[in-house]
Amino acid sequence: MHDRSAAALVIGNEILSGKVVDTNAAFLAQELRALGVTLRRILVIPDEVDVIAEAIRASHPAYDLLFTSGGVGPTHDDVTIAGIARGLGCGVVRHPILEQKIREFSGDKLNEARLKMAEVPEGAELIFAGDLNFPTIQIRNIVILPGIPEIFRAKFHAMKTRFASDPYFMRVIYTRAQESTIAEFLNATLAAFPELQLGSYPKLGDPEYRVRVTLESKNPQYLNRAFEHLLAHLPSDTIVRTE
Amino acid sequence: MHDRSAAALVIGNEILSGKVVDTNAAFLAQELRALGVTLRRILVIPDEVDVIAEAIRASHPAYDLLFTSGGVGPTHDDVTIAGIARGLGCGVVRHPILEQKIREFSGDKLNEARLKMAEVPEGAELIFAGDLNFPTIQIRNIVILPGIPEIFRAKFHAMKTRFASDPYFMRVIYTRAQESTIAEFLNATLAAFPELQLGSYPKLGDPEYRVRVTLESKNPQYLNRAFEHLLAHLPSDTIVRTE
Repeated sequence: MHDRSAAALVIGNEILSGKVVDTNAAFLAQELRALGVTLRRILVIPDEVDVIAEAIRASHPAYDLLFTSGGVGPTHDDVTIAGIARGLGCGVVRHPILEQKIREFSGDKLNEARLKMAEVPEGAELIFAGDLNFPTIQIRNIVILPGIPEIFRAKFHAMKTRFASDPYFMRVIYTRAQESTIAEFLNATLAAFPELQLGSYPKLGDPEYRVRVTLESKNPQYLNRAFEHLLAHLPSDTIVRTE
Repeated sequence: MHDRSAAALVIGNEILSGKVVDTNAAFLAQELRALGVTLRRILVIPDEVDVIAEAIRASHPAYDLLFTSGGVGPTHDDVTIAGIARGLGCGVVRHPILEQKIREFSGDKLNEARLKMAEVPEGAELIFAGDLNFPTIQIRNIVILPGIPEIFRAKFHAMKTRFASDPYFMRVIYTRAQESTIAEFLNATLAAFPELQLGSYPKLGDPEYRVRVTLESKNPQYLNRAFEHLLAHLPSDTIVRTE
């Protein structure tokens, strides 16, 4: 099975101080899963060059893909490019193609703040994808995305086919049994199918079911055998439905 | 100024795989900010003992408070207690008071899965707060909270006064100027008030304003001087309103 791992690095004081609720990480989690990419961690950190650099040093060798969100605008708190460059031990340079695009786009509004958005870590490439006006900056395995959700999503959608890995398959069992009642059956299935990704999610106050059990694998035959194993062991009168 | 730092550790495959959108971290960010506690990072990791242990080793000495969310139920994927214990280099023990409460609560439904929820890292204390049935487990500076949002919130609210630090004060300026236009004024204010926490948040497609500028400090006099400084420099015809 071909599997790709990923990490998300969300950069922004506004999220840590509760002023803005991040939605990019959850979006990324869903999109990467659909692409068969295994998201291994999400880290939210402040707009500080040293903290970003440390996170880059720790994350970029450990995962196949690293997505950053935020900190790429024109103001003082946009320090993602500087943080990534420091983390990789390279300089920050103005990319000539970005500079040209910003000059064209800005007209007589051109200023230093706008030109700051032409800066990239030295050695970065520009990914032109879809019909978007501005390319996405990538250096090594690091894909640098902006924090504004609409643009984050548009850029990701335009590029996503290049990240695709083998897909995950999922089956779901909804049960009205309590989680502590079915724990032994989950354990038995996991003992028989150790590679299975098995999740158990209680829901409070739902009239239909108490626990949603998810079974996942990249191998559909293995998944179906595990599914049948668990279904055969759960008390049948507690099963609400399956998917 | 008395300041307390914190980190949040969210544990759960379901979040990384996009099946569940975490809301506990955003809740914690807002609540801690209101309490004057500075949240320095949010880390979301899978239900794996070694990964949790590594995160605990890295985080618990670095921050005054560390809150964990998730992984404390009765099933195979609930490994937060084991991960914290491994990270701290201590054992896992059954807490006699928790065991007694679970036995009383369970009656004839008592089983090994339920008794698993009496396990704590050795040396943990139980925090009884509010009118909640079950106490919260704390060890050193680590507060262990469940992933179910309703219970996470109820437990946090019942305990929160014990975390309070000096409050933050905030002023806000809404402007219809573009972010790249005001960047130089933000930089000038930050140069004059280097301790100021200054944020600049563009909003796409809002008919009222283009950028929300937030100014924050634990020192209200310092904050007001910085606020007046910035207000005096911004082009007055671009200011929509202030808070």
